Amino acid sequence: MAFNVTQQLISDHLVYGDLTPGEEIGLRVDQALVQDATGTMVMLELEALDLDRVRTEIAVQYIDHNLLQEDERNPDDHAFLRSAAGRFGLWFSGPGNGVSHPTHQQRFGRPGATMAGSDSHTCAAGALGMLAIGVGGLDVAMALAGEPLYVRMPQIWGVELTGELPDWVSAKDVVLEMLRRHGVKGGVNRIIEYHGPGLDGLTAMDRHVIANMGAELGATTTVFPSDAEVRRFLASEDREDVWRELVADDGASYDLEEHIDLSSLEPLIAKPSSPGNVVPVREVADEPVAQVVIGSSANPGLRDFAVVAETLHGRYADPGVSVDVNPTSREILQDLAKGGWLFDLVSAGARVHQSGCLGCIGMGQAPATGRNSLRTMPRNFPGRSGSHEDSVWLCSPETAAAAALTGVITDPRELSHEQGIAYPHPKLPQRASVNTAMLVKPLPAEQARDVKLVKGPNISSLPDFDALPADLEVPVGLIVGDDVSTDEILPAGAKVLPYRSNIPKISEFVYHAVDPDYVERVTALREDGGHLIVGGDNYGQGSSREHAVIAPRYLGLRAVIAKSFARIHWQNLANFGILALEFDDPGDCDDIELGDTLMLPGLRDAIQRGNTVEATNSRGEASYELRHRLSPRQVDMVLAGGRIPLLRGQIDAG
Amino acid sequence: MAFNVTQQLISDHLVYGDLTPGEEIGLRVDQALVQDATGTMVMLELEALDLDRVRTEIAVQYIDHNLLQEDERNPDDHAFLRSAAGRFGLWFSGPGNGVSHPTHQQRFGRPGATMAGSDSHTCAAGALGMLAIGVGGLDVAMALAGEPLYVRMPQIWGVELTGELPDWVSAKDVVLEMLRRHGVKGGVNRIIEYHGPGLDGLTAMDRHVIANMGAELGATTTVFPSDAEVRRFLASEDREDVWRELVADDGASYDLEEHIDLSSLEPLIAKPSSPGNVVPVREVADEPVAQVVIGSSANPGLRDFAVVAETLHGRYADPGVSVDVNPTSREILQDLAKGGWLFDLVSAGARVHQSGCLGCIGMGQAPATGRNSLRTMPRNFPGRSGSHEDSVWLCSPETAAAAALTGVITDPRELSHEQGIAYPHPKLPQRASVNTAMLVKPLPAEQARDVKLVKGPNISSLPDFDALPADLEVPVGLIVGDDVSTDEILPAGAKVLPYRSNIPKISEFVYHAVDPDYVERVTALREDGGHLIVGGDNYGQGSSREHAVIAPRYLGLRAVIAKSFARIHWQNLANFGILALEFDDPGDCDDIELGDTLMLPGLRDAIQRGNTVEATNSRGEASYELRHRLSPRQVDMVLAGGRIPLLRGQIDAG
Repeated sequence: MAFNVTQQLISDHLVYGDLTPGEEIGLRVDQALVQDATGTMVMLELEALDLDRVRTEIAVQYIDHNLLQEDERNPDDHAFLRSAAGRFGLWFSGPGNGVSHPTHQQRFGRPGATMAGSDSHTCAAGALGMLAIGVGGLDVAMALAGEPLYVRMPQIWGVELTGELPDWVSAKDVVLEMLRRHGVKGGVNRIIEYHGPGLDGLTAMDRHVIANMGAELGATTTVFPSDAEVRRFLASEDREDVWRELVADDGASYDLEEHIDLSSLEPLIAKPSSPGNVVPVREVADEPVAQVVIGSSANPGLRDFAVVAETLHGRYADPGVSVDVNPTSREILQDLAKGGWLFDLVSAGARVHQSGCLGCIGMGQAPATGRNSLRTMPRNFPGRSGSHEDSVWLCSPETAAAAALTGVITDPRELSHEQGIAYPHPKLPQRASVNTAMLVKPLPAEQARDVKLVKGPNISSLPDFDALPADLEVPVGLIVGDDVSTDEILPAGAKVLPYRSNIPKISEFVYHAVDPDYVERVTALREDGGHLIVGGDNYGQGSSREHAVIAPRYLGLRAVIAKSFARIHWQNLANFGILALEFDDPGDCDDIELGDTLMLPGLRDAIQRGNTVEATNSRGEASYELRHRLSPRQVDMVLAGGRIPLLRGQIDAG
Repeated sequence: MAFNVTQQLISDHLVYGDLTPGEEIGLRVDQALVQDATGTMVMLELEALDLDRVRTEIAVQYIDHNLLQEDERNPDDHAFLRSAAGRFGLWFSGPGNGVSHPTHQQRFGRPGATMAGSDSHTCAAGALGMLAIGVGGLDVAMALAGEPLYVRMPQIWGVELTGELPDWVSAKDVVLEMLRRHGVKGGVNRIIEYHGPGLDGLTAMDRHVIANMGAELGATTTVFPSDAEVRRFLASEDREDVWRELVADDGASYDLEEHIDLSSLEPLIAKPSSPGNVVPVREVADEPVAQVVIGSSANPGLRDFAVVAETLHGRYADPGVSVDVNPTSREILQDLAKGGWLFDLVSAGARVHQSGCLGCIGMGQAPATGRNSLRTMPRNFPGRSGSHEDSVWLCSPETAAAAALTGVITDPRELSHEQGIAYPHPKLPQRASVNTAMLVKPLPAEQARDVKLVKGPNISSLPDFDALPADLEVPVGLIVGDDVSTDEILPAGAKVLPYRSNIPKISEFVYHAVDPDYVERVTALREDGGHLIVGGDNYGQGSSREHAVIAPRYLGLRAVIAKSFARIHWQNLANFGILALEFDDPGDCDDIELGDTLMLPGLRDAIQRGNTVEATNSRGEASYELRHRLSPRQVDMVLAGGRIPLLRGQIDAG
């Protein structure tokens, strides 16, 4: 059978299931990417698993998100992650070494490999012909422990590119065109595979731009072929040896088809406050601009900075615009310095920041209230910049440069017409700088075993969670209504997030806005077997954060009984050994009162035997029919107390 | 009479008093320097003064302290300061343009001028033969309004330099030697004047290093002569026209004399947690180092970065050390890029940050808990870095470079002995880069008048304060004991400081730790005439912060009656129209209870007539003899409701 590139990648790594869209498949994972915001929990999970050494061919712990270091918490996290990378056998890319995705592409990516990453833009690695999927922390921890990655087989969406990009239009405009056509849900349950003759004009870093923002389309991932351009890129990084060709078989087909004529594209921009609000730049021209930010994983290439530098060359930026340069990595900063582009940027008035994610995740350079900020970054959700009333636009480096010069949103093609600036074609070096000053190799296993984890005062180990008891008889600790979100279960924000490595501390914030007495009430019940929560429809919607199950579990939550559950939270509950049960008769929900004790005798037996569980209320002795929807694999997890105790038991058993 | 340089500067600007040490003198102010942390209050004070246009020859608003922009508050402040600079006729040095002191030396400093600056390191300008004094915000606001600067005439301390610095020893070691000899109080009530043949080997930027850290000796300021080196420096900055010679008259003498033989110095380092803990580097060698920071106003010169770059050239820093580069200004960053030094630093593993104060004022790059951080910065008070248990050392760029390479504290002379590294003598360009992309000129007066102040949601105008009433009859709102500090009156820290531009909001924190009910209690009394505070000895010790009087004044505080007052707080009380009264019989203090109403009839008349005021307690009708120690000038301030209403009245009267 003729396979497209995605099908080749999947079938090469399939350990469970088949290629039928919608069915669960299990994939062997070759590489793993961890960043610091999610990484401390991943490392605490590896510690809890008693893992001796990671089992993927390559695993890298990057420090790129939390670089500001206003107090000891971030540098303490960095020291912890460095020690954990040493202990478990990961590469360690130090703070300021670079943004994970482009740095991974430069130093580690290889055509034909799979990768699991605890960051939603992991998909960027598709630029090299990889199948790279962003998932939650525990899924990466499991991949590091050698377990398969389970996903639902997506549809494969072939996007044929033809023609060549016009002057002042670049890769960012290609993915903005996809967002203009399909919006932020257009890629859900799909893998996007680009193909066609238009690829010849897109470098590997251009493809990174497009693959990266596949996340904004909601796609499971994005895939490009591995062709001569990928070979050239790898050679420029002194890694031609890892290249292999990976192209669609003759006659391969796609579940869905799309076509983009590159020559028909024009400069596009996403208006505030969604990557899906895409319009032509000319339609919003002349809006005043207070800030321009270039860089991030969505425009990381040397070329992306050089084109701005050459546009600004010999000119001053508008003094009302803060031009913030966020160099992708020290390697790229080195090449920017060598090529004279850094000099041009600084001369024009730019502020140069350390290499990292910066304002893309609200870690610096937040814009002023209500003032327009044009960014080459991937996201502009409200408040993500850090400012409450922000006005963030997403665009190409060319459109950013034009606004830097004029102080207003400007179609960059106007620079040629109005100011006589020729479209720059920066001459990039054949060989990129390779610099491993801050990239620490994994220690040999015998040395790694002696490394002690370095935990600052704000880092505590993942608590041990016990197995599900044979019978459950515990009080109802909280009753909530429909559509409770993970933000209500455990808020994010500057007050709570610094405790991401400290489950006991972060647990103090559980359900705080909903019921400030919850924590005290259920803490008192912990020693006597814990508590239950009763909920309505769509329990646990919203963000995928694991802390919203780990923290309540720490407080003694054993089961949630609800009318229905949101998908990811439901999966997270199982991962951490909390039983999710649904009312057979939703009306029973209203019968239960806060403080009622529910009895679920023979619970372990019941969930192994089938899908039905019976509960009796000690007040009035009403009984309720409940059901679970766990797979046998998930039943095992819940019985063991979660996926970590389960796997630890399997490791112990050899 | 033969004058030294300091005496020449003072006598050229004297408008009040004479040169007798200890007596108050008034000085005409030529230049003013304002930074953003103190500047928002200065600008609100200019607004409250109804000032049309600044009256100094040069006034510059720098944005260098609060650059992190985690949310909208800092960029909103920047936008406000930009509009205020436009409105009142100041230059505006935008965020990321550079650290105020070295940037001022490069673009504005001129031999023979006086300067008032709302930053304690303003004294650095002494490097060019200026008399530059760091003072509180309102004193700078008054200087901007054309008023003299009042200081107590200090003693003049002549420090003769002879000989030449050995290899691996530089200007920082000279001022560390002064701190080693005299500690952090050695310069109190003194102006340090350097002279002698040793000056020939110190560039203007080397002298900046020494003058800057005069602040750490507690000196009123530091003065250098304006000689051929100053001429060379100004020529390199394209400003030779402002040069004039300024050297001590033949036969000039000093109140105190000191001698340093530069050739006898060795590399020195200040241990945690005071700039006065100075020891030779060799005595603390081999301590592990986790961070090295180069840059800041204490080592700002191109040479200081270049010497590190050439030491690291072609080598990787120790991977356990975070090497943080804090470029002084975009001009210096430009020259670092042009000269190839930036390439060397990045290649060696450095993290390059935007130009500004960074970790020197705890705005980024805080060290990990308990780990040694070596910095070329001026201060290492506990916690100033932002970390609770920090371990910050102060040293030269040479000593910093040695630790970056070895990972432990290392006498840099060992680099020659052990590693064969020759001491670098960087070849600096004859002409420095001059770049005004982010340096906005004052608007012409007719345009400036139309500029509206741009106030984000967190910025509010300075409240109006009314004149002292003829009679005062108000309750005692708080009674405190001895040695109450301004930190107790109004704390600093990350929770409170963001409200520095918002008096109503910051007032909510007044005396919060001492009596959480104070604010609510006295707010209820505001409309009925306000309240009094009764205190013990040394009321208002500690930090000079003006907010500790402005905020209580906003809450209705009309007078403080205490046993005695700390000097600066006492002066601030008068500046903002709060009457400071002392008990004639300190025992009366114990007679007064919270809530007692005190009657001070004919108060306005009494303080104009003499120093004595009588108060009667409505409970029991006891009466107390009180006295004030205000000068006639200060009596006028208090009568008017503060220095701002007084001056505004004078401006209105023409």
